Amino acid sequence: MSLQSDHRIGKHAMLLLLSEDECNMPDCWKSCKGKVGTMDSQKIIAAIETAAKNNGIVDGDIYRETHALYHAIIEALHGITRGQLSIGSVLRTVGLRFSIVRGNPYEKQQEGEWIAVALYGTIGAPIKGLEHETMGLGINHI
Amino acid sequence: MSLQSDHRIGKHAMLLLLSEDECNMPDCWKSCKGKVGTMDSQKIIAAIETAAKNNGIVDGDIYRETHALYHAIIEALHGITRGQLSIGSVLRTVGLRFSIVRGNPYEKQQEGEWIAVALYGTIGAPIKGLEHETMGLGINHI
Amino acid sequence: MSLQSDHRIGKHAMLLLLSEDECNMPDCWKSCKGKVGTMDSQKIIAAIETAAKNNGIVDGDIYRETHALYHAIIEALHGITRGQLSIGSVLRTVGLRFSIVRGNPYEKQQEGEWIAVALYGTIGAPIKGLEHETMGLGINHI
Amino acid sequence: MSLQSDHRIGKHAMLLLLSEDECNMPDCWKSCKGKVGTMDSQKIIAAIETAAKNNGIVDGDIYRETHALYHAIIEALHGITRGQLSIGSVLRTVGLRFSIVRGNPYEKQQEGEWIAVALYGTIGAPIKGLEHETMGLGINHI
Amino acid sequence: MSLQSDHRIGKHAMLLLLSEDECNMPDCWKSCKGKVGTMDSQKIIAAIETAAKNNGIVDGDIYRETHALYHAIIEALHGITRGQLSIGSVLRTVGLRFSIVRGNPYEKQQEGEWIAVALYGTIGAPIKGLEHETMGLGINHI
Amino acid sequence: MSLQSDHRIGKHAMLLLLSEDECNMPDCWKSCKGKVGTMDSQKIIAAIETAAKNNGIVDGDIYRETHALYHAIIEALHGITRGQLSIGSVLRTVGLRFSIVRGNPYEKQQEGEWIAVALYGTIGAPIKGLEHETMGLGINHI
Ligand SMILES: [Mg+2]
Ligand SMILES: [Mg+2]
Ligand SMILES: [Mg+2]
Ligand SMILES: [Mg+2]
Ligand SMILES: [Mg+2]
Ligand SMILES: [Mg+2]
Repeated sequence: MSLQSDHRIGKHAMLLLLSEDECNMPDCWKSCKGKVGTMDSQKIIAAIETAAKNNGIVDGDIYRETHALYHAIIEALHGITRGQLSIGSVLRTVGLRFSIVRGNPYEKQQEGEWIAVALYGTIGAPIKGLEHETMGLGINHI
Repeated sequence: MSLQSDHRIGKHAMLLLLSEDECNMPDCWKSCKGKVGTMDSQKIIAAIETAAKNNGIVDGDIYRETHALYHAIIEALHGITRGQLSIGSVLRTVGLRFSIVRGNPYEKQQEGEWIAVALYGTIGAPIKGLEHETMGLGINHI
Repeated sequence: MSLQSDHRIGKHAMLLLLSEDECNMPDCWKSCKGKVGTMDSQKIIAAIETAAKNNGIVDGDIYRETHALYHAIIEALHGITRGQLSIGSVLRTVGLRFSIVRGNPYEKQQEGEWIAVALYGTIGAPIKGLEHETMGLGINHI
Repeated sequence: MSLQSDHRIGKHAMLLLLSEDECNMPDCWKSCKGKVGTMDSQKIIAAIETAAKNNGIVDGDIYRETHALYHAIIEALHGITRGQLSIGSVLRTVGLRFSIVRGNPYEKQQEGEWIAVALYGTIGAPIKGLEHETMGLGINHI
Repeated sequence: MSLQSDHRIGKHAMLLLLSEDECNMPDCWKSCKGKVGTMDSQKIIAAIETAAKNNGIVDGDIYRETHALYHAIIEALHGITRGQLSIGSVLRTVGLRFSIVRGNPYEKQQEGEWIAVALYGTIGAPIKGLEHETMGLGINHI
Repeated sequence: MSLQSDHRIGKHAMLLLLSEDECNMPDCWKSCKGKVGTMDSQKIIAAIETAAKNNGIVDGDIYRETHALYHAIIEALHGITRGQLSIGSVLRTVGLRFSIVRGNPYEKQQEGEWIAVALYGTIGAPIKGLEHETMGLGINHI
């Protein structure tokens, strides 16, 4: 039932963003990357959902897949925003890269597939350079 | 005023936790790592503060250094807990590794030193294996 | 001082929304129902406040009545949104029916009147069908 | 893909708690009820998880089932606590009845099974009678 | 309906804590002061509730009075804790003085009585001197 | 290391707003006052940041100063909004006066400069008079 050491889906999602090395993800896993810069939380969510659908990581016609992804995104946004999901309404802006990974992180077959959303970039005042780094990770069963 | 590409303090803190490669952090920066498993948020905070003091990353006699570190830890915990800082009181437990990095991420000398706290590990029910990964990053000026 | 079993104001408010049976509310109590579909939290609040005033449940000229109702609405919205009051800004939409009940739930006369706001409907992506149910209840002295 | 009108899993869960009428839930659905009075959030979570396992609603050996249930419980607790998950630590206590329902609320077969957790009871000062009603509902795919 | 300039109940409550001058509060108003140092949120709430009852500011036998006071206290605690009501569980401690004022802040007679709770003191690490000031104000109709 | 009794930076900031007496702030400290009425959180933040820069309290070209001020403002807004930073999106409006003070509140020279942001005014429905008082204080090292 435990997490397999080379199947850590969250770690794979984060290294996709942070590392330049080739990533040795399990073969059958699906993943994609993208970027978004905005003051609107909903644009981050929309960008990630669109990338996930366009890359065949979730099936947009099945609500349970969209629902799983949505909650993973919201959890990742908590790491980015640290207390309130608001961005522009508290006068800050983000420049983010994101990755999405879908796979089976657990040994036991019944645990099935899970999804990880990782976000990394900068957050700060809407003035170039007045910003620091920020990171978030959300994980859900799918 | 912008972040120097090889001086990204948050990225360095996260790669200290996630990557096995040698980390090429700027020479003058200070850093340390540790681990903590607990159901109590305050034990995570205490473990990180103790490590930071024992490794000379902050001066425990100067409140402004402790204050900067404290808020960086709380921000990192938001990524770990995603909505409420509570751990045991909502019947979950964490097994975390942490890193702390102190250095100058900005080109401009007046920007001075900043501190990054990164956390990575698992969160879940207090039963071995019923857990998934979690990550948090907090950054503050010091 | 305890809640009278047939004077449970919150239960009456919820059954007004959920049940098709005639509701046997105490005679002197006031109540009304309405519906609202929106991505904006403030439109939910405005719809409920307007219904409460138009149906004589609160007196819009007396701030303490508006204040009591406002906080009951906000508490009900916590059940609907589960963590952040935001709706559209985290890319979701709601279709809600609401009820408002004003009456005396306690035996003791000094406890006076209280107000209950119940909300029930769906929340989800702004695409028909990608949604699940949601419920909220707020109660305040008036 | 839309919710079937007689398959509203959240409404069924709430009527199990609120209504004395026989409930005409779909045959193949699973459900149970219980009660818990406490000042500790974790005891509510533990009571619901134990009831779900003992009544065969979730399989305690499969983490994805526990994970789905856990997040449904936390979402229901947001409706109960309205802003902070804390109970005793903000000097209040709850007396709750709960219901858990597992079934397929959507027409489309691929939407699979979902779980609903409903909570209803009183919250207030730790003195008998100084309390008002409270309700919460959490829904998740399983 | 507007706030009377010399009847600002929140300002009176705060000046009771901050100013050494004699306070010229309206004659018929009731007020008291106290202090509490603790790592437990519930002890702050209990100290304020006890002071309010012992000084005849609220009637502890009437739930609507206790309820009004409770929510005013919780609102004041938001200013003190700035994001999470937790104190000791995030490894911090407070030393607070508090004031409670009950009176009629509005010109219109129907607006009746309101209650203000003001808190002022220090918050910080559980080590003497590692702390900064903190303030909170909560207001409710009673 | 402790707070000097006549150097309480938060108290000075609040008395600037609340008291008509001349304020005997330490000579070398910097301070300013302003006002803002709005339904948008970001306008409050912008008004305070602009006043701080225009009055030479922070140097807008140095991010660490802007960062310190930003977090002090956000902390003060928690006292104003008591649970959610939203204002207009939950159908309320504020009329606030603010003060900003920069100085050295601690005896020890190494503690350096800190910044306090105090807010005081009214919050309520977007109808004149349907409002009550609100207060917030945020403090940070700079
Ligand atoms: Mg989870
Ligand atoms: Mg920051
Ligand atoms: Mg209440
Ligand atoms: Mg959901
Ligand atoms: Mg209010
Ligand atoms: Mg602080």
